[in-house]
Amino acid sequence: MTHTVAVVSGGMDSTTLAYLAAQDGPVTMVSFDYGQRHRKELGFAAMTARRLEAEHVVVPMSWLAPMIAGQSSLVTPDVDVPLGHYAEQTMRATVVPNRNAIMLNLAIGVAISRGADRVATGVHAGDHFIYPDCRPAFIDAVNAQVEVGMESFLPDGWSGVWAPFVNVPKDEIVRIGDRLGVPWSETWSCYKGGEIHCGACGTCFERREAFALAGVVDPTVYESTPDYVAPAV
Amino acid sequence: MTHTVAVVSGGMDSTTLAYLAAQDGPVTMVSFDYGQRHRKELGFAAMTARRLEAEHVVVPMSWLAPMIAGQSSLVTPDVDVPLGHYAEQTMRATVVPNRNAIMLNLAIGVAISRGADRVATGVHAGDHFIYPDCRPAFIDAVNAQVEVGMESFLPDGWSGVWAPFVNVPKDEIVRIGDRLGVPWSETWSCYKGGEIHCGACGTCFERREAFALAGVVDPTVYESTPDYVAPAV
Repeated sequence: MTHTVAVVSGGMDSTTLAYLAAQDGPVTMVSFDYGQRHRKELGFAAMTARRLEAEHVVVPMSWLAPMIAGQSSLVTPDVDVPLGHYAEQTMRATVVPNRNAIMLNLAIGVAISRGADRVATGVHAGDHFIYPDCRPAFIDAVNAQVEVGMESFLPDGWSGVWAPFVNVPKDEIVRIGDRLGVPWSETWSCYKGGEIHCGACGTCFERREAFALAGVVDPTVYESTPDYVAPAV
Repeated sequence: MTHTVAVVSGGMDSTTLAYLAAQDGPVTMVSFDYGQRHRKELGFAAMTARRLEAEHVVVPMSWLAPMIAGQSSLVTPDVDVPLGHYAEQTMRATVVPNRNAIMLNLAIGVAISRGADRVATGVHAGDHFIYPDCRPAFIDAVNAQVEVGMESFLPDGWSGVWAPFVNVPKDEIVRIGDRLGVPWSETWSCYKGGEIHCGACGTCFERREAFALAGVVDPTVYESTPDYVAPAV
């Protein structure tokens, strides 16, 4: 039995992560409410917590917005949400400085207090090319930091940060989730946070593309489904 | 000119740190209000910010208390504050899991958003023997993590986490602060958080001892001054 503390936003990747972790034992879910436009996804994370009978820790981080001083379109009303396929330029606009290190270290604190065995993060291969804190080397560095910093305070079964999708593309995550029976209608991707998925923002675009590439039926209702160009294989 | 983001609690060490950093250029102070009993110290941090004309970012972290689930006497009303000289056992009771990594990474986020050159922490030699996240190896590990994780997002002048007291005992910090003209009456140590310093809790004890060993007049008004045994030299 492995007790996992999983960072779950309510999106496709982290929800699949929670279902994957639940195969091995109890799950504690940690979500961050940092004032993002798409905080609607937190309600979807709560649905997953109920399904998995997981403890759900929601960390209120609305103070992050003033702290980062207008550098992210996720928390700043006057910066446009980038539309279309994520490219380096537009992804940069969604970066909250050092966010993954902050979130992982908070989740590690939760894990130590619960005597859990590992912390799971849903970072995936598609994140690498612009977010340096989504690469395997970053996961290794966080593991080194927590080993040195927490040492004898670490739980007996501690195996570190677990990033099973770190080299997995998003469409493969859809295939994995499909096998695990992830109810996709209980996941949320849209950065715009409307009644239904907009279908046109960067994350909606990625969502549609992942289902298409995976050959899995996409049950999502979109406001519109503009064309996108699938990447060359 | 070096712009420092300094983690300042309002205690002696971090206040001296802020004054030391201010020798090199502008200072942004980051304080954490994590629901600790001695949150009174935050008002003292604010005094230092006014003196140094520093931006003062106070991060509200009261959610940390339920999160850590009763593992720390600093946030849990029903755990006694350890009295007398800090020994391994009693110091363990004040540990919030992974706290230094959480605080440093938040401060690093602030620093990146401000384009600052370094993050300063007041960890000192006396902390090593029980807090593994106060040792030089931990500072190195955090620096490695942020280099890998933030890479090209780091400010041009970034020199990492600066821990000038990491191998300095507390009485030497008093000597350094004395030379810098730190107004000691604008610092707070007591974990009990009463009107005046209690003089008997672990941190009051350390405060008294540091002044005594440094040969610097202690201007602090204490409720009582029970005897302590100075460590063998």
